[in-house]
Amino acid sequence: MTALLDKLTWRYATKKFDPSKSVPQDKVDQILEAIRLAPTSSGTQPFEVFVVTNDEIRAEIRKVAWDQSQVTDASHVLVFAAWDNYSAERIDAVVTQMEEERGKSEMLTGYYDNLKNMYLPREAEVNHNHAARQAYIALGFALAAAAELEVDSTPMEGFDPEKVDEILGLREKGLRSLTLLPLGYRQAEEDWLVNMKKVRKPRAGFVTEIA
Amino acid sequence: MTALLDKLTWRYATKKFDPSKSVPQDKVDQILEAIRLAPTSSGTQPFEVFVVTNDEIRAEIRKVAWDQSQVTDASHVLVFAAWDNYSAERIDAVVTQMEEERGKSEMLTGYYDNLKNMYLPREAEVNHNHAARQAYIALGFALAAAAELEVDSTPMEGFDPEKVDEILGLREKGLRSLTLLPLGYRQAEEDWLVNMKKVRKPRAGFVTEIA
Repeated sequence: MTALLDKLTWRYATKKFDPSKSVPQDKVDQILEAIRLAPTSSGTQPFEVFVVTNDEIRAEIRKVAWDQSQVTDASHVLVFAAWDNYSAERIDAVVTQMEEERGKSEMLTGYYDNLKNMYLPREAEVNHNHAARQAYIALGFALAAAAELEVDSTPMEGFDPEKVDEILGLREKGLRSLTLLPLGYRQAEEDWLVNMKKVRKPRAGFVTEIA
Repeated sequence: MTALLDKLTWRYATKKFDPSKSVPQDKVDQILEAIRLAPTSSGTQPFEVFVVTNDEIRAEIRKVAWDQSQVTDASHVLVFAAWDNYSAERIDAVVTQMEEERGKSEMLTGYYDNLKNMYLPREAEVNHNHAARQAYIALGFALAAAAELEVDSTPMEGFDPEKVDEILGLREKGLRSLTLLPLGYRQAEEDWLVNMKKVRKPRAGFVTEIA
């Protein structure tokens, strides 16, 4: 088993965090760096991440997240929020950065002109869903990076996204919340899930080989 | 820098694979195991993965994927396909496996009864989009696992999903294709992207701290 597989087996959706333990800043930084390195469709990185440590705001989020204790017991809560839509301005900003770092080219501008022709006429909901998928690749990277660092994490969709958008002022920024990711350390003796078997389909239940 | 961050920096969306090199079976197995270990909302694992090595089928897929050479030059093409909808049968199968592995409990059946009440009345498109997001967490795990093993990979959305569904007979299985992930080894001297700078937003471009 590789080091990564070993850590991915170790991780689980922590139900009870130890409120007395805090993830060191350098580990949070490394998890954010993994998120930053995640590939996204056409390199747009169409999402943002909010790192919430403020106690009052976490208490507010917990109220609209079925009162789940992870939101206030973990030391950090990452909130993944995707663009509500693609826009010419957002795509142009991607092109500008690429031109600055790689130089201008007709291939580059042609590619992104085509992308605008494809994205901009679509409904906002279609584009938001596409952006959300990209954010979930980065969520996968965050989960893997946290596991490597032996930081516990719990991906949570069990909250009212409209209320979290209000609490964090996301809609005004053209964003919609997708997932909460508390980061911290398990309080094993009070966690009903920690000693349960990890349940996953056997490989034959989801893999088909076409040789 | 952690080992994982080092590998995530090393990886890139390979544009030219070396058709003479094949990923060893044990590495493919480890990438599939990472996919299997990925967490999904309520543990439904609402997707399947097709491992395509058949040359004729890969040639067919290439035709509906803008003739991109990775589809036939890489040694393996993983096709991620998400459930077209949630159904009582699909959720019941998840519950059955959990009961077999963890034992029966009222908490378990109550949780999944609530889930059915939430999912089943929703439009298929909403449920498919939700399932697709879960598959993208697993895509993230696959990308990280491939990088750890120094296997090149290229996540590709640039194809006609309806045509790939036809080629692989996915709709009859209640599945819809999402992403192709060729796995192989780069042919660096013929790859225009390999020596280009990896372009990502700076951390301040997507991270906000709320302390």
